[in-house]
Amino acid sequence: MRPIYLDNNATTRTSPDVVAAMLPFFSEQFGNASSTHAFGSEVAGVVRDARRHVQALLGAAHDHEVIFTSGGTESDNTALLSALEAQPERNQIVTTAVEHPAILSFAAYLRQTRGVEVTMIGVDGNGRLDIDAYRTALGPQTAVASVMWANNETGTIYPVEELAGYAHEAGALFHTDAVQAAGKIPIDLSSSAIDMLSLSGHKLHGPKGIGALYVRKGVKFKPLLRGGRQERGRRAGTENVPAIAGLGKAAEIAAAGIAEEQTRVRSLRDRLEQGVLQQIGGSMVIGGREERLPNTSSITFEFLDSEAILHKLEQAGIAASSGSACASGSMEPSHVLRAMNVPATSLQGAIRFSLSRENTPQDIDRVLNVLPGIISHLQSMSPLWRERHEAGSSAQGSSGGAAHVFAQS
Amino acid sequence: MRPIYLDNNATTRTSPDVVAAMLPFFSEQFGNASSTHAFGSEVAGVVRDARRHVQALLGAAHDHEVIFTSGGTESDNTALLSALEAQPERNQIVTTAVEHPAILSFAAYLRQTRGVEVTMIGVDGNGRLDIDAYRTALGPQTAVASVMWANNETGTIYPVEELAGYAHEAGALFHTDAVQAAGKIPIDLSSSAIDMLSLSGHKLHGPKGIGALYVRKGVKFKPLLRGGRQERGRRAGTENVPAIAGLGKAAEIAAAGIAEEQTRVRSLRDRLEQGVLQQIGGSMVIGGREERLPNTSSITFEFLDSEAILHKLEQAGIAASSGSACASGSMEPSHVLRAMNVPATSLQGAIRFSLSRENTPQDIDRVLNVLPGIISHLQSMSPLWRERHEAGSSAQGSSGGAAHVFAQS
Ligand SMILES: Cc1ncc(COP(=O)(O)O)c(C=O)c1O
Ligand SMILES: Cc1ncc(COP(=O)(O)O)c(C=O)c1O
Repeated sequence: MRPIYLDNNATTRTSPDVVAAMLPFFSEQFGNASSTHAFGSEVAGVVRDARRHVQALLGAAHDHEVIFTSGGTESDNTALLSALEAQPERNQIVTTAVEHPAILSFAAYLRQTRGVEVTMIGVDGNGRLDIDAYRTALGPQTAVASVMWANNETGTIYPVEELAGYAHEAGALFHTDAVQAAGKIPIDLSSSAIDMLSLSGHKLHGPKGIGALYVRKGVKFKPLLRGGRQERGRRAGTENVPAIAGLGKAAEIAAAGIAEEQTRVRSLRDRLEQGVLQQIGGSMVIGGREERLPNTSSITFEFLDSEAILHKLEQAGIAASSGSACASGSMEPSHVLRAMNVPATSLQGAIRFSLSRENTPQDIDRVLNVLPGIISHLQSMSPLWRERHEAGSSAQGSSGGAAHVFAQS
Repeated sequence: MRPIYLDNNATTRTSPDVVAAMLPFFSEQFGNASSTHAFGSEVAGVVRDARRHVQALLGAAHDHEVIFTSGGTESDNTALLSALEAQPERNQIVTTAVEHPAILSFAAYLRQTRGVEVTMIGVDGNGRLDIDAYRTALGPQTAVASVMWANNETGTIYPVEELAGYAHEAGALFHTDAVQAAGKIPIDLSSSAIDMLSLSGHKLHGPKGIGALYVRKGVKFKPLLRGGRQERGRRAGTENVPAIAGLGKAAEIAAAGIAEEQTRVRSLRDRLEQGVLQQIGGSMVIGGREERLPNTSSITFEFLDSEAILHKLEQAGIAASSGSACASGSMEPSHVLRAMNVPATSLQGAIRFSLSRENTPQDIDRVLNVLPGIISHLQSMSPLWRERHEAGSSAQGSSGGAAHVFAQS
């Protein structure tokens, strides 16, 4: 039986077309893109074409607004560091409690080592950002506001265009971590207030170890990696030509596939969600009331432990995850769910199902076939669940209902 | 006619065996190495094996002394930053005038933005480090001494073990940029005083966009990239599994091929050098008297311009370079040759020939066939050359003689 992969927010399968686009640049056209001889110039062209494909995916006005990096983490770290170093008179980062560690850890490091003030904006039970608090936090001291376009755990989409506008009113730069958004929802930076944007190749069926940082023309920039003059002096290090070619191809495919994400992938995800909520008592969709990525569903099972659920799913040939891959293996409850004030009884039982255009209706059928049995088995072994259940308390699946639960806590 | 590639210090051809080792990890075993399900654990194994191959290439005592990075630049930047941040009571970097920009630019950045004291040790006309000046510069304020194992332009090998010992006497850490040394000369860190070492995959027939930083067990470390807990919290970002697998294979092949570098590649290089010196007046080998990498020869042609020579070589199907690829296209004379006090008349005419185990005797024959004609043609068009030559001054090729020339200047 083919294993079913529903962990596409952790990483995606590199598309065979992407691999084909990379292959010539390992052993045939292997030159250094910065070399002046023919071996160099033949690969400089592919780097240029790839940059244009990423430009097109983002709707960026200029190809040189795209800087190739080693991935989402480097892009995120670079954006924060650059904003601070390019504006030494400003010393504050405004960000959110639900960002990826690539933002949160780097901001904490800047706070500890450089005395940067880091203001973290909270979210409500639906994952919705506290926009008043965000606006209040912005001021003449703010170097950059960094808010993710879409959350990796819940898929919640943030109103980045509006938030960028507020940042500009305070004279601050606006960065968005679009690692999960790029390739899944339309992005158009051509008439946007967004100054910087991060993306990562392996989240959109491109290769690992490559990403991009968009920096709007005219935005002051300081590099993180320093050395050679690659990427117009904005990112040192020999260009990773095969991976750049692969990211270009992945961006090209993704741009053409956004409609499919919005329709076919979304309807698979919705069917999964509705099936689970209908069949499984004590389940709820986290952040289900808010606008979300079409591929992501974070479903929590009251009184249960996600590790046990994942283990059973894996035995059934289904790969999903609890929280983000970076946090898993660590057993700490997800910082995102904690920020959403998910009640303690549901905090440990969250499973993230993240689809891609490679998933089929049969994949969803299989999950809906095995998951109810797995959950009811685990529920029957959970003393807390049985206590509640035998006491006759309601344990109906609820999608929108999640908001109520969280609002009460 | 097959083009001849003699620019292996800029980048090497990825070995087809390396590509084969990478291929399964794009579209088949594509999981995130940090994921806990089967897709993750199957790739965690290949990362572990690759780490052991790099460990073996370096003769490191423990596999977890090897941290995978995005390349030589990131490794170099990380080493300097870590040494300073892990030892806040020390505020000086001691390095050399002939380092790669990945060290020099990053050190300059730390000086400008953090007031770090950067002491640059000079070299003599043979490229030999001023060891007295180095020892004098070290002190209780030195956080790290960073000296490259081998120079990318001239191939000069530095006595890093001895230099590491002096650094330790001052209580400082010692880092070496071994990007050009790894895979070309034996390295054994098991009983070494070296604390940190950088290498880059694409310089040893591995993929671009991957490198390693060796950090000796017990050495205090602070990461450059922050986010997820990959690489034991020392380098955040989703593991680049295919490239890691490729670097592992490249390290394995390189470890087995060091003997060939020392014999076959060296003898090709020596034949090239001797042929040029014998046939071409006004030529000399830069740093020719010092111990050098077996594959590298930097030859300068008096009164000529390297761009013109490279252009003619390229027309003959031969790729070489002037100075490092990062600096080429910029027309500034190489900082390495300037540090060596190469006389003005020879500063513009240096060509770096860098071989690999893929070169054949026929490649060398072809260079020796065409280069004398190219040079004498360009000499005939150089007013300065003709003036000198017609004045009857000696313009005999000289290898060891280079030292004399430089000593006079
Ligand atoms: C929202 C978000 N930002 C940043 C990252 C980091 O990307 P990468 O692991 O490619 O460095 C990830 C993925 O891990 C992510 O989901
Ligand atoms: C000595 C040396 N150090 C560092 C580097 C940087 O390596 P990379 O371009 O892989 O980042 C290079 C190559 O460009 C080099 O020759």
